Amino acid sequence: MPEFLKVKTAEEVLALVDRMVPLGEEIVPLEAAAGRVVSRDIHAAIDVPHFRRAVMDGYAVRARDTFGATESLPALLRVVGEVFMGKPAESAVGPGEAVIVPTGGAIPEGADAVVMVEYTQDVGDGTIEVTRPVAPGDNIVEPGDDIAQGSPLFRAGWPLRSQDVGVLAAVGLRSVPVFRPPRVAILSTGDEIVSPETDPVPMGKIRDINTFVLAAQVREAGGLPGLRRVVPDDLERLAAECVQALTDHDVVLLSGGSSVGVRDYTVQVLERLSGAELLVHGVAIRPGKPTILARLGAKILWGLPGQPASAMIVFTAFVRPSLLRLQGVDPALRPKTHTCRAVLRRNMPSVHGRADYIRVRLLEEDGTVWADPVFGGSAMISSLSQADGYVIVPEHVEGYEAGTPVTVHLFGMESLTA
Amino acid sequence: MPEFLKVKTAEEVLALVDRMVPLGEEIVPLEAAAGRVVSRDIHAAIDVPHFRRAVMDGYAVRARDTFGATESLPALLRVVGEVFMGKPAESAVGPGEAVIVPTGGAIPEGADAVVMVEYTQDVGDGTIEVTRPVAPGDNIVEPGDDIAQGSPLFRAGWPLRSQDVGVLAAVGLRSVPVFRPPRVAILSTGDEIVSPETDPVPMGKIRDINTFVLAAQVREAGGLPGLRRVVPDDLERLAAECVQALTDHDVVLLSGGSSVGVRDYTVQVLERLSGAELLVHGVAIRPGKPTILARLGAKILWGLPGQPASAMIVFTAFVRPSLLRLQGVDPALRPKTHTCRAVLRRNMPSVHGRADYIRVRLLEEDGTVWADPVFGGSAMISSLSQADGYVIVPEHVEGYEAGTPVTVHLFGMESLTA
Repeated sequence: MPEFLKVKTAEEVLALVDRMVPLGEEIVPLEAAAGRVVSRDIHAAIDVPHFRRAVMDGYAVRARDTFGATESLPALLRVVGEVFMGKPAESAVGPGEAVIVPTGGAIPEGADAVVMVEYTQDVGDGTIEVTRPVAPGDNIVEPGDDIAQGSPLFRAGWPLRSQDVGVLAAVGLRSVPVFRPPRVAILSTGDEIVSPETDPVPMGKIRDINTFVLAAQVREAGGLPGLRRVVPDDLERLAAECVQALTDHDVVLLSGGSSVGVRDYTVQVLERLSGAELLVHGVAIRPGKPTILARLGAKILWGLPGQPASAMIVFTAFVRPSLLRLQGVDPALRPKTHTCRAVLRRNMPSVHGRADYIRVRLLEEDGTVWADPVFGGSAMISSLSQADGYVIVPEHVEGYEAGTPVTVHLFGMESLTA
Repeated sequence: MPEFLKVKTAEEVLALVDRMVPLGEEIVPLEAAAGRVVSRDIHAAIDVPHFRRAVMDGYAVRARDTFGATESLPALLRVVGEVFMGKPAESAVGPGEAVIVPTGGAIPEGADAVVMVEYTQDVGDGTIEVTRPVAPGDNIVEPGDDIAQGSPLFRAGWPLRSQDVGVLAAVGLRSVPVFRPPRVAILSTGDEIVSPETDPVPMGKIRDINTFVLAAQVREAGGLPGLRRVVPDDLERLAAECVQALTDHDVVLLSGGSSVGVRDYTVQVLERLSGAELLVHGVAIRPGKPTILARLGAKILWGLPGQPASAMIVFTAFVRPSLLRLQGVDPALRPKTHTCRAVLRRNMPSVHGRADYIRVRLLEEDGTVWADPVFGGSAMISSLSQADGYVIVPEHVEGYEAGTPVTVHLFGMESLTA
């Protein structure tokens, strides 16, 4: 493992994320498919509809029998039957004949069009007048007109929404192949951190926050939070916990211990893990400089800052995209995720020479969505709740003025409801 | 029950939704709190931090010992100890003394400020020079400075985000009172509908789609989908299924059977349910006119159109807000949910005299989010997947031109990633 790597840009880290390989696939019942990512191209196995259907209430007829019909010279047809919803059509339509059909009803043999009920008049005695001509195919859907057998429905890498599940139900699927969600272990390290059930908290210690926030973020990103543990800054124990976590999980998040300083434990831990490949050691963003990314075979380890507000930003910027990628989300199919546009409410100064990720709160006033910067206080726990996401000020920019339209990277979907 | 009610506007229906009463409360562990809605105002039971902490690496000192210090005339202090992260401060600071402290470390007795390490010089022999004065309180947070004991954290009705769970962890909560999520039964009726496991589907029948789409939408809205069943258009069976569903669920969704026509089963079913109060019978929007809302004591029944695309729109417009309300979401705290702004990509014509809910697909191009209308084909199952949400053209407006900024009501949060 190289002893030192150049600090990477956010774009370089995201390029590494893009190259991550989706986990294996599993088959889930349709009831559990929403939010999952299809793992193979899915084609329709059947035609929808699978029979000729009326799309209007009216009469199934032979179109040629209506040619030339007008209000003053209507076509006269004999009603020989009725089609009921959900039943096969029993009567066939012969020359000069019509059969009553409801919207969605099956079209009887012999008929090739439906005359809307509005353009007919029941003149009694089982006879109707048709006052407008129909062409063959009018008001009828043919088998496969909606979805043709064999046609593509969803590409591998597509995250299924509620409505997509409806399409799968329509083509008769009861289960669907999807990528397996990543199992994520969350370790929080720091000699001052105690697990949250500790009560009272001894002098000098603080309760763990990161495993709670990160677990909620993992779940929201479609991952499965597994092991969650507070580990003291003890190299041997930390390495042992990481080895343990890596056996049962696809991803390990290790918050704290990764600042490039005296106690750069994360990198020292990685040195003790055989086969660990350090891909990122420091990112040129603030906060988030101490971010670490390593690979151990197919397993991923992220080192995150210990500061909760910073860990949340790094999770949103890098870890979430990696979890989506491991779930197989194809960025080409869903290029932009978890962002919204807003207008800066106040000036947002920034230091030239590094990318600043500045937290903002979203507000809606007079139909405008405003992004209001949350300045300072990133060490303050209370400030955690104030932000809905962040705005990136690139390294070559010295800040933005109030009124500038910006892209907000949302911490979670719930943030949108602010 | 009144035989006939005037068709209501969407605003009138939403006003009824706003008056719905949240369900009871339950206590959930913090691990399961994200996405849930707090049922009582929550205050901090403890101070955060609960001890005096350094916010910089440096030396804990008595501020008066540094008054007047400059680079040319530094104050000389004797280093009498060191504070370690997560440990109580062992040495006290007397006059002329200093103790090494890390960021986040406990402040020793006697000290009232921290001098940043940058403004000191170790001159050997256990002595440092301080080159800038500090005032009492500098670089120190007092107990409760971040979150004071007793201060309000979250109001009842606030949906907890990932970061909010972190704040609750910080104040030592291990569980939190939240509103109970609504249990929702989903019945799909229609003589032509068969349950999805039916294979082959008989001529004239089609597979149920609505229970799948609606169950996914219920889950996304925080509800618990329960009973899901396809019921034929038989008044007695439908009434029996509704009675059954209402015993175990808070809400019943009944799709199909509610068009104001020959087979207006939903209202006939309601007439058979004792204590049913019909609140809405028809809404002046398209699609969605046949929407029904009824109350049976504390239970809610929605009648939705049978057409999947229409059912989805009515769910998004009315049922989702009602599920959020039953979960206790306070609209005053989170006024705008599930919408985004976009620019119309093509003209959107509309008929004067009714509110049109026109489905759109979201596209991002050149930094602009476009809403592209999905015209026609609402009967087409394939069109289900094309839309991410809808735009409302109010009844007195005859459509919008391409380029008009519009609000898109999103079918789901996932839609945002389009």
